Amino acid sequence: MQAIDLNSDLGESFGAWTIGDDAAMLDIVTSANVACGFHAGDPAGILETLRTAKTRGVAVGAHVGYRDLAGFGRRNMDLSSQELVGDVIYQIGALQGLATAAGTRVTYVKPHGALYNTIATDPRQAGDVIAAIRAVDPALALMALAGSPLVAQARAAGLAVAAEAFADRAYTSDGHLVSRRQAGAVLHDPDLVAERMVRWMRDGTIETIDGTPARVEAQSICVHGDTPGAVSMARRVRARLEESGFAVRSFSSEA
Amino acid sequence: MQAIDLNSDLGESFGAWTIGDDAAMLDIVTSANVACGFHAGDPAGILETLRTAKTRGVAVGAHVGYRDLAGFGRRNMDLSSQELVGDVIYQIGALQGLATAAGTRVTYVKPHGALYNTIATDPRQAGDVIAAIRAVDPALALMALAGSPLVAQARAAGLAVAAEAFADRAYTSDGHLVSRRQAGAVLHDPDLVAERMVRWMRDGTIETIDGTPARVEAQSICVHGDTPGAVSMARRVRARLEESGFAVRSFSSEA
Amino acid sequence: MQAIDLNSDLGESFGAWTIGDDAAMLDIVTSANVACGFHAGDPAGILETLRTAKTRGVAVGAHVGYRDLAGFGRRNMDLSSQELVGDVIYQIGALQGLATAAGTRVTYVKPHGALYNTIATDPRQAGDVIAAIRAVDPALALMALAGSPLVAQARAAGLAVAAEAFADRAYTSDGHLVSRRQAGAVLHDPDLVAERMVRWMRDGTIETIDGTPARVEAQSICVHGDTPGAVSMARRVRARLEESGFAVRSFSSEA
Amino acid sequence: MQAIDLNSDLGESFGAWTIGDDAAMLDIVTSANVACGFHAGDPAGILETLRTAKTRGVAVGAHVGYRDLAGFGRRNMDLSSQELVGDVIYQIGALQGLATAAGTRVTYVKPHGALYNTIATDPRQAGDVIAAIRAVDPALALMALAGSPLVAQARAAGLAVAAEAFADRAYTSDGHLVSRRQAGAVLHDPDLVAERMVRWMRDGTIETIDGTPARVEAQSICVHGDTPGAVSMARRVRARLEESGFAVRSFSSEA
Repeated sequence: MQAIDLNSDLGESFGAWTIGDDAAMLDIVTSANVACGFHAGDPAGILETLRTAKTRGVAVGAHVGYRDLAGFGRRNMDLSSQELVGDVIYQIGALQGLATAAGTRVTYVKPHGALYNTIATDPRQAGDVIAAIRAVDPALALMALAGSPLVAQARAAGLAVAAEAFADRAYTSDGHLVSRRQAGAVLHDPDLVAERMVRWMRDGTIETIDGTPARVEAQSICVHGDTPGAVSMARRVRARLEESGFAVRSFSSEA
Repeated sequence: MQAIDLNSDLGESFGAWTIGDDAAMLDIVTSANVACGFHAGDPAGILETLRTAKTRGVAVGAHVGYRDLAGFGRRNMDLSSQELVGDVIYQIGALQGLATAAGTRVTYVKPHGALYNTIATDPRQAGDVIAAIRAVDPALALMALAGSPLVAQARAAGLAVAAEAFADRAYTSDGHLVSRRQAGAVLHDPDLVAERMVRWMRDGTIETIDGTPARVEAQSICVHGDTPGAVSMARRVRARLEESGFAVRSFSSEA
Repeated sequence: MQAIDLNSDLGESFGAWTIGDDAAMLDIVTSANVACGFHAGDPAGILETLRTAKTRGVAVGAHVGYRDLAGFGRRNMDLSSQELVGDVIYQIGALQGLATAAGTRVTYVKPHGALYNTIATDPRQAGDVIAAIRAVDPALALMALAGSPLVAQARAAGLAVAAEAFADRAYTSDGHLVSRRQAGAVLHDPDLVAERMVRWMRDGTIETIDGTPARVEAQSICVHGDTPGAVSMARRVRARLEESGFAVRSFSSEA
Repeated sequence: MQAIDLNSDLGESFGAWTIGDDAAMLDIVTSANVACGFHAGDPAGILETLRTAKTRGVAVGAHVGYRDLAGFGRRNMDLSSQELVGDVIYQIGALQGLATAAGTRVTYVKPHGALYNTIATDPRQAGDVIAAIRAVDPALALMALAGSPLVAQARAAGLAVAAEAFADRAYTSDGHLVSRRQAGAVLHDPDLVAERMVRWMRDGTIETIDGTPARVEAQSICVHGDTPGAVSMARRVRARLEESGFAVRSFSSEA
């Protein structure tokens, strides 16, 4: 049976501020990208999310970001290589410590927000993130944007890479994401979104914004969980995949 | 030959701000209490300190503190157990990640500033720190104030403890530190400070502020390195110990 | 017609994290305690809240707190006088700048969370907050816990004081708040809460936890707005006060 | 007698970390660009610098920066207009509050680091800073890089502008600064630096890196004070200007 991984960004609450419903999402996804404290996440809250991930058997990734709580890691920042390497190692290590305390372990790294977008195409910052991962543990996989130059760069550097497709994002005919600034970039109909993923699992293509199918190579599907509607959509995606005969399991459990 | 450990607080620079001369101190001490980013220390700077520690064969401890950059971790904060456990695990993990990248590893934990003073006598926060250490790695030792209730509490919980004496602090007749608010609490004469430590190594006692000797049980001596004068004093302490026939080596290398 | 002020804590969102429904609450209250960035509140969000407050004619207070985003200003911190005076002035000034940009102005100061509780009874930190207010603008009023020593201390120092009663908190027979650690400390029935405030407006007393009435001297009623239920309760309190013939208006507009 | 202003970046210490010798620099400069807490500066330390500035009759400017303590405001960040306007207003207001407490007032704004460089040529972020200044107080002047498009943009928006020349930086033949990445960008000889400023005061030109003179229009000279050598150089510049018959006084006192 063909299998696919579902991942989501979790652990993003901070102190008195709550985002998302981690407990609900951990019943749906098979990989949890857990915030590491730089763009979101406080240690006690992260620990709770990790304990729930452990209980549910969900794989844990370090969702590393720029040090920018006020901007939620969504603002570009031009860190030096020394700074970026240090910041990424620090965040992975912190999450590893919390994961150990929760009885689980970090198996992959997914950069967040502006850092995610930047390294998809900027080889310098991408190289820094890759170097940081390798310095902590070369066995950690990197989760990266399907179709981006980062996928090849990381594989060439010896990292395992899980490319990811986005369930609720429109694609261009060359297999890239439609910019959020364009109308129609984000899809809101849970059934449509779920069907797109089922079709993609069947033939490897996603219908693009101009109606043609684009081939997307990915080992994971990203679903969102930061609103009640998002949780429902994620649940729908999983249900339709399973009803269609696909297994939903962590990409890292394939080995 | 009798041996003793010398420890100092390092890695306390932050971004553009520099404190101390880590490279100089790493030629003197055998254990480096390295800041973990909550009271001081940025990842790139910490990494550099760890690399130097590795080169010089200096043992590395996680110098964990309250999340208070503006107060340098010197202000009491009443964290809940959940918060304190999480914060300590996070910091240890972060330093472990950086230590791995530097080719070394964290062998002990020394709480910093207000947290250090609080857990010396507050069993609740002490218990939280002990629980955090055990959750990450029960083999990590705890460095604690010689003569404090914490020493017994941590040993009872199964942790190895390195009690520490302060080279440049005056002691009361019952073996405690004279409060910094009292005159004479801090000693400034390098020769006097060095001789006190030599005498302590010989007979286990330190001359107290009222002239009587007090017995102090410790496995490490804390020296400071945050001013040029402090570096000279630390060097003097080490030189006098070695001239007097004592080996200076990490407490953790005893095993 | 007898009048009373209704106040609430607002501007507490931070970046991507939202707390409360400021727009809804600004239709209900007459005084807005606006976060100043140390325990909560980012400048752009604060500015938006201030603009709405201006539109609705709601008075603005600086809700100053300890520098502790991770703890939402709810953890005690032992700042020196120099630190506390500086931090309070800084926060008031920052809010004054944003208020000017929003076409309104700050007319009072209400300390938040742990700082609020500490200065209710600690004359040293209370004196620091009073000194800070006087250093920026002695015409700023202080909002303080009704019945606390702070009320007299601030008046003796020359500040106008608005004492506040809490709509949803139980009182002891000597007119103090029941500790949140005790059962029954927080009231949840909107009708009951509203009736208590109406009765208090009529005879100056609030029924205490042991059934006897306690006299509470206050110029403002604090209502909460951080949950949908809280907004409904605040609306109910205002409605019942007005139906009972009381005017609801800012304490500072009395002049 | 012809007069010129000398400005320097001050108030940049943070908690336990010290940068520069503010007391020494406040004997030399006539305008103090005081950090506002986002890239550097804690309230108590800023207040102390402002009190000294008041005593010495030095004009005070708000040295506003990106919210980036770890990067000292030197890393580019792509804030939205809403964020940047809010952040700049907040910082000016905070400094105004502290200045009031110190018995002085803020008369101008000088953006710091990456923000300074960005707005010199980016009209969008420049417009945000200008809008922020105007929203707080349109009488505040803007200190800006001499020869940059920002000077005209700010004047067109109605702000008074003090253009500044850099005493220790090499200039290109078209009157711009040589990039710090190029050799020779920063001058280190105090006598040479002082003589360049004297010649510039006499004929309005600065010898450029290729030997030709470039015309530079400015109302202030920036000197640095973050190292002992920098303080000596600043003192030398002031001494040579005065010996050469020029008055050194705040640009804002011209009115």
